[in-house]
Amino acid sequence: MTQRVYLDWNATAPLRPQARAAMAAALDLVGNPSSVHAEGRAARQAVEEARRRVAALVGAEPRNVIFTSGGTEANMLALSPAVGTGGAACDRLLVSAIEHPSVLAGGRFPAGMVEQVPVTADGRIDLAALGKAIAAPVGRPLLSLMLANNETGALQPVSEAAAMVHAAGGLLHVDAVQAVGRLPCDINAMGADLMTVSSHKIGGPKGAGALVLSSQALHLADPLIKGGGQERGSRAGTENVAGIAGFGAAAAAALEDLAADAGRMTALRDRLERGLKDVAPGTMIFGAQAGRLPNTTLFAVPGMKAETAVIAFDLDGVAVSSGAACSSGKVAPSHVLAAMGVPAALARGAVRVSLGPTTSESDVDCFLAAWRRLFQSLANVRDIAA
Amino acid sequence: MTQRVYLDWNATAPLRPQARAAMAAALDLVGNPSSVHAEGRAARQAVEEARRRVAALVGAEPRNVIFTSGGTEANMLALSPAVGTGGAACDRLLVSAIEHPSVLAGGRFPAGMVEQVPVTADGRIDLAALGKAIAAPVGRPLLSLMLANNETGALQPVSEAAAMVHAAGGLLHVDAVQAVGRLPCDINAMGADLMTVSSHKIGGPKGAGALVLSSQALHLADPLIKGGGQERGSRAGTENVAGIAGFGAAAAAALEDLAADAGRMTALRDRLERGLKDVAPGTMIFGAQAGRLPNTTLFAVPGMKAETAVIAFDLDGVAVSSGAACSSGKVAPSHVLAAMGVPAALARGAVRVSLGPTTSESDVDCFLAAWRRLFQSLANVRDIAA
Repeated sequence: MTQRVYLDWNATAPLRPQARAAMAAALDLVGNPSSVHAEGRAARQAVEEARRRVAALVGAEPRNVIFTSGGTEANMLALSPAVGTGGAACDRLLVSAIEHPSVLAGGRFPAGMVEQVPVTADGRIDLAALGKAIAAPVGRPLLSLMLANNETGALQPVSEAAAMVHAAGGLLHVDAVQAVGRLPCDINAMGADLMTVSSHKIGGPKGAGALVLSSQALHLADPLIKGGGQERGSRAGTENVAGIAGFGAAAAAALEDLAADAGRMTALRDRLERGLKDVAPGTMIFGAQAGRLPNTTLFAVPGMKAETAVIAFDLDGVAVSSGAACSSGKVAPSHVLAAMGVPAALARGAVRVSLGPTTSESDVDCFLAAWRRLFQSLANVRDIAA
Repeated sequence: MTQRVYLDWNATAPLRPQARAAMAAALDLVGNPSSVHAEGRAARQAVEEARRRVAALVGAEPRNVIFTSGGTEANMLALSPAVGTGGAACDRLLVSAIEHPSVLAGGRFPAGMVEQVPVTADGRIDLAALGKAIAAPVGRPLLSLMLANNETGALQPVSEAAAMVHAAGGLLHVDAVQAVGRLPCDINAMGADLMTVSSHKIGGPKGAGALVLSSQALHLADPLIKGGGQERGSRAGTENVAGIAGFGAAAAAALEDLAADAGRMTALRDRLERGLKDVAPGTMIFGAQAGRLPNTTLFAVPGMKAETAVIAFDLDGVAVSSGAACSSGKVAPSHVLAAMGVPAALARGAVRVSLGPTTSESDVDCFLAAWRRLFQSLANVRDIAA
């Protein structure tokens, strides 16, 4: 492959060198972490070291970190009617309309117990609508609200939502997959009861993640994967030792570099967005009115088709995305933009550019040069206002 | 760590060099397999190559391989009342009394729908009892029967059971985790409808596995992990690309070396068992009357405690196990030996020695020397008949 520019970090991040090194070391560990012999204890030690590192990234206690195979499994594990404190369970699930498909699917709540809360035009949950939904006298709510949207990067008012749902005796699950490693994410400071984290979005390997609990008092009465005592009974199955070790190393590196990375990405993102508008002043940047992640730009110009654009960028050496990776194959426009009231014709043209800690000015400039070529060719064949 | 002898391959196998190489290459793949750009397609290609390799190991079609995070998750995915062909579902779950805890837990069947079928004294499912259970007029059965028991190595009469359950219109799930890579395992030849395979038992990394279907007509109406189109809708979540690539490489290597490995392990296992009886003629070898895996010996001498023995072996440089790794922490004696009618006092002394493709004669002899020292010290302090 010739020199490529990878700007699809929200789909997955390149592996950090620290994660690669930790994985190589963990792959040399022969034992099963459940075995009592020296080989088993060494593997157990690698898992517990990673648990401390992931816990530190989100301000949790290590014993409240439950390793899973990724963010989607962690969401499935969290979203169960049996989640609760002191034996009390949740009677219904509230989700924002812009959650990841694994949350929108409702986890293990029956479809009739799941209610979507709308968002405003800037891509943030509508707190007035949330208040009404919480006030409905139909039992204890579990709210699942992402910290940052994966398509627009829009930050959600999680602390406000936490106060509202807690006042009603409910619980808050925060899917922090896109925010962790890009913003400070302290589970207790934000008021979350449960938090989902994914390894491969922070430079760890694909195939690892965690559900983090704010307190040991929180009870997961209904494990998703049963039949073994691993993860204190909350998640059975032999641990993905190398993946978990890589996750832990990525978490430690992400925590150390957090402030510097965020500052650099913000500057590059602003450069990118200025460049987009230089090429096409009519460029729409979705969620720009909201606080956003430092690394994410979702944009469109009227008349452009995202599929065409993504393929053109790819041929020109630049990897970007039309919405979320997990729905890349779909023809339907983004549910996130639909929820924000963006007309389908414009939403179909939305292209996501997401940066990472190793993105350079040169990467952004390569993207902008490709965008200038693409936009010109579109303008030549179609009636796009430059 | 000084020179160690690892004889706990049934808990987990050391990584094969081919798996390590495939993982190193896969970790360099930046993309998400669901992304349409070049980086995404390269990751997708690694996953699909591994799918072909795992399929080849069990005689399945690649499209019928569903990657999971391991054997336990695959068992949970398989054991759902919604599994069926042509819309028909299963009304009850039959499991042998010696299944892995993840099968005994019943997957997603309510406890009242799960029935245990006893085994005979040699550690094989009691086919007469199975016939009676199948004949009970309470709906369509799903039988889950392991191909080889993880503690004794006893091979189960899977083909006979398949014929019986199919004659009743039911389905057969085979947990082949301990047999794959040690015996030829053709899903169709044995008559299984669903088969569980684990990566780390065949020299792939921990954290990968698969549920394999015999036919595309088989319908998994109720995915365990939802909210994304991965694995043809049967298992959501970004794929563990490196883990899957390592799994595939291990599958290819295991298939190539199968006959030679099995022959070598059988010879070493026989040497080991002769040695055990040389030291203590009263040694019981469980399941020895049944056909067994070529690599597994579960033995006891009256008066010995397995915990003591495993720790003594460990201090002497030899890794063995008291029963299954996932229940190593437990005090209760093995459910497998209990089901075989072994008295609890004897079962509490059962030590499992399991060999692998790289086990040498010298490893076996080191184990036997350690066993001689241990047995002598036990005989000196306790009333054990030598």
